[in-house]
Amino acid sequence: MIAGDRTPVSDRAAATCILALCFVCLHVTALKSQLFTRQAELTYSAEPPISYKTLYFDQKIDHFGFLEDGTFKQRYLVADKHWKKPGGPILFYTGNEGDITWFCNNTGFMWENAEELGAMLVFAEHRYYGESLPFGQDSYSDSRHLNYLTTEQALADFAVLIQNLKSTLPGAQQSPVIALGGSYGGMLAAWFRMKYPHIVVGALASSAPIWQFPGMVPCEDFNKIVTQDFAKSGYNCDTNIRKSWKAINNVSASESGLQWLSEEFSLCTPLKNKNDAISLKNWLEETWVNLAMVDYPYEANFLEPLPRWPIQVVCKHLSFDSSVSDYQLLHGISQAAKVYYNYTGSSSCLNTSRTATSSLGALGWTYQACTEMVMPMCTDGVQDMFEPEEWNFQAFSDECHAWFGVRPRADWAGTVFGGKEIASHSNIIFSNGGLDPWAAGGVTYNITDSLVSIMIPDGAHHLDLRYSNDLDPPSVRAARLLEVKYFKDWIKQAGKKPPALQKNVA
Amino acid sequence: MIAGDRTPVSDRAAATCILALCFVCLHVTALKSQLFTRQAELTYSAEPPISYKTLYFDQKIDHFGFLEDGTFKQRYLVADKHWKKPGGPILFYTGNEGDITWFCNNTGFMWENAEELGAMLVFAEHRYYGESLPFGQDSYSDSRHLNYLTTEQALADFAVLIQNLKSTLPGAQQSPVIALGGSYGGMLAAWFRMKYPHIVVGALASSAPIWQFPGMVPCEDFNKIVTQDFAKSGYNCDTNIRKSWKAINNVSASESGLQWLSEEFSLCTPLKNKNDAISLKNWLEETWVNLAMVDYPYEANFLEPLPRWPIQVVCKHLSFDSSVSDYQLLHGISQAAKVYYNYTGSSSCLNTSRTATSSLGALGWTYQACTEMVMPMCTDGVQDMFEPEEWNFQAFSDECHAWFGVRPRADWAGTVFGGKEIASHSNIIFSNGGLDPWAAGGVTYNITDSLVSIMIPDGAHHLDLRYSNDLDPPSVRAARLLEVKYFKDWIKQAGKKPPALQKNVA
Repeated sequence: MIAGDRTPVSDRAAATCILALCFVCLHVTALKSQLFTRQAELTYSAEPPISYKTLYFDQKIDHFGFLEDGTFKQRYLVADKHWKKPGGPILFYTGNEGDITWFCNNTGFMWENAEELGAMLVFAEHRYYGESLPFGQDSYSDSRHLNYLTTEQALADFAVLIQNLKSTLPGAQQSPVIALGGSYGGMLAAWFRMKYPHIVVGALASSAPIWQFPGMVPCEDFNKIVTQDFAKSGYNCDTNIRKSWKAINNVSASESGLQWLSEEFSLCTPLKNKNDAISLKNWLEETWVNLAMVDYPYEANFLEPLPRWPIQVVCKHLSFDSSVSDYQLLHGISQAAKVYYNYTGSSSCLNTSRTATSSLGALGWTYQACTEMVMPMCTDGVQDMFEPEEWNFQAFSDECHAWFGVRPRADWAGTVFGGKEIASHSNIIFSNGGLDPWAAGGVTYNITDSLVSIMIPDGAHHLDLRYSNDLDPPSVRAARLLEVKYFKDWIKQAGKKPPALQKNVA
Repeated sequence: MIAGDRTPVSDRAAATCILALCFVCLHVTALKSQLFTRQAELTYSAEPPISYKTLYFDQKIDHFGFLEDGTFKQRYLVADKHWKKPGGPILFYTGNEGDITWFCNNTGFMWENAEELGAMLVFAEHRYYGESLPFGQDSYSDSRHLNYLTTEQALADFAVLIQNLKSTLPGAQQSPVIALGGSYGGMLAAWFRMKYPHIVVGALASSAPIWQFPGMVPCEDFNKIVTQDFAKSGYNCDTNIRKSWKAINNVSASESGLQWLSEEFSLCTPLKNKNDAISLKNWLEETWVNLAMVDYPYEANFLEPLPRWPIQVVCKHLSFDSSVSDYQLLHGISQAAKVYYNYTGSSSCLNTSRTATSSLGALGWTYQACTEMVMPMCTDGVQDMFEPEEWNFQAFSDECHAWFGVRPRADWAGTVFGGKEIASHSNIIFSNGGLDPWAAGGVTYNITDSLVSIMIPDGAHHLDLRYSNDLDPPSVRAARLLEVKYFKDWIKQAGKKPPALQKNVA
């Protein structure tokens, strides 16, 4: 392993903790200080005028034990303008690690298809994120309060909420429910159908890396995809990024170099030492990864405001021969980074402690990565453009223990959710974008006739769930049409099912 | 509701808590005193010479949270004499609420088919029973220690154990695993296949009342079946039992009557007052229910040593006109009860605080009934031979709270396990005995081609899982043959499955 002066574990932990991109958590020190001071997330307000009711449901804090009998208010959003009752379908967004209003605003696919399907839309917030805090402001105060932040509890929340909606909403009793989600929300949608097939008739799991777990896929693949995105977006783009790490090492070796870097990158906090230079490299690595995820074909504001095909724009700043000086190379890098952080020109300086929207709950996801959601990633510097770094579970576990007092269970997700052995389930669509690094851990081939994969070659992270756009590639248009066709099939199947027999033998 | 002087809730709680028959828990006072003094169960030694290894596996106390990171030793038994490795199947008994050696000794079906199937046998003990105590002798000390006694945790234990066996036992990696169980163990087998279909290729759920939950089946049906068993086993048998409750009320109204009853029933502890007479009635009610469950066609010692077709023997003592005096009637009842409690003639007196083998963990099951396993039962005194009694959830809940400090969740089992909406699952056999009152809550019709029901008209509680006997009715022989045929089909299906693809897109 090269780069012995880096802190590989923090790095790896970071790479692990980003499902849906919360690279913020990389910064261990920052994270530790957040642990006891976490604030509720801000609400993101979207462009498209959408209208929903905000409601709250009393959920058990612990579905799997009876000692802790407290409840909390789970937030959920309901839009029933187009709902054809009785019996019209319900599209149910299985909220992931963030403020549910943000997912609601970024899941145009549901809004655009509600009328045709006569569907009610429900967006359910995941416990411990947004406003759905089991212990209010104390929810993140220690491992005792964090103990109920698990995927199984979140799925149980969804199940109980749906059962309640169906039994209390007039006209909903016979409504077939379809689960949808993107990224971790897509994993939840798939797992929800697997574990509660009596509650949802099918699931659309978009960009859902349900195989990004130990032993299921090679840990290198994620960063290979990131690298390929840059390689094909401009001359020498990946090569120059690969060279940039050494250039940063060289330049940051001197005081004047550190100062130059701080100025060149317009950093809000100037670099002071070698460790700060390491942080700069981590922040840049996250930046390139995030760009790969949001390499959309049109202007968008998902993690940050960005131009269309942002990696092409980034690569324009890096399309030079590799014979340039370190300073010339890093000037290109800084210009490239500013495409991501200052496309609108409104940033007076760049803050290396954040890389994306604050609507994602970085701390909560770090806890989940440190418990069940163990997602190995690594780099070799050859097939990818990053500094080589192995996956070191033990070191990762030690760091988790230091942060939260808990240790990850590497095998658990596979045991509970089946890993690659999921063929006995049904009615799940796994959609993946060819540009999306998370496709590395996704289901990218048909498993059965009703566990199907849809590839969107020109798509980044869950492009299919976003609002349609004139610049959408044909592959995502086709994917959406196919997804709606499956929805209709599932709804039809549900309608054909005879009502539950009440026959009993005596 | 008649019989206002009874304690209906305790009664109902009792009726609820007996899955696989632990009516012992009826006696609330006795139960309360047990709460802090519970001893590990005794091991039952069976007649048939069977040979197994006793092993222990370190299980997480909490699979669904990360704060409690302790482990305990789960006991499991392994018999691999006939196992054809590599790849021979594993028959896995999903242990229920009792000492696993007792289930091992009473599940001859597995032993008799091991050779033909080339199968390894594994019997896994359920946490909190037998020797598998998460907190040793403190396991039952309070609700904090009891918090991990849930069906979900037990299923997770089975999953983790099997994954471990398959990865550590040479030759087991490709072995298809079939889950088997009777009664609550049968419910676990079915639910295990539903929740972990990647771990078991199919399940035999014998006498498994997975629908004996609120809103799924009429609460009267259980006791209707008990009554029918007695009605068809002798002249006036059910009628005389139905009359006995009032006779006990009449006779127990006087001191001399109480004394007469105590002597007539050879009670170890003489009746002193009205409450003791109520206990006598409860104990008799449990006795008739237990007899219905173990009305086997041959001599057997499951709950108690009994003659063949014990209800017929019991009914011989009750085959008289209903015009007899209370004393004559109760003499018949006492003779009938002694068939159950003193068939071997070795009991010097009858103990109304127990009704069955001590290999079942009554206290643990009561806790489970007071949390997730809420199984409504009721009587009307018309369609059944018991005193009328409604199902009163609130009162039951209050009593559970008084005992354990927890409240039952009436809807939870339905939400988590699907209730009647299980059609999307596969490869489960539900077998039921026509004589078995638990068939009231069982799956007694085919749901799909691979969720099938096998009825055994002359069978009592999970007769199919017992050793074969010359006196077995043809229906149970046929059932067993069919079950093995399904096993072979499942094993064949598993063999045909291509090995998990490791293909990933980049």
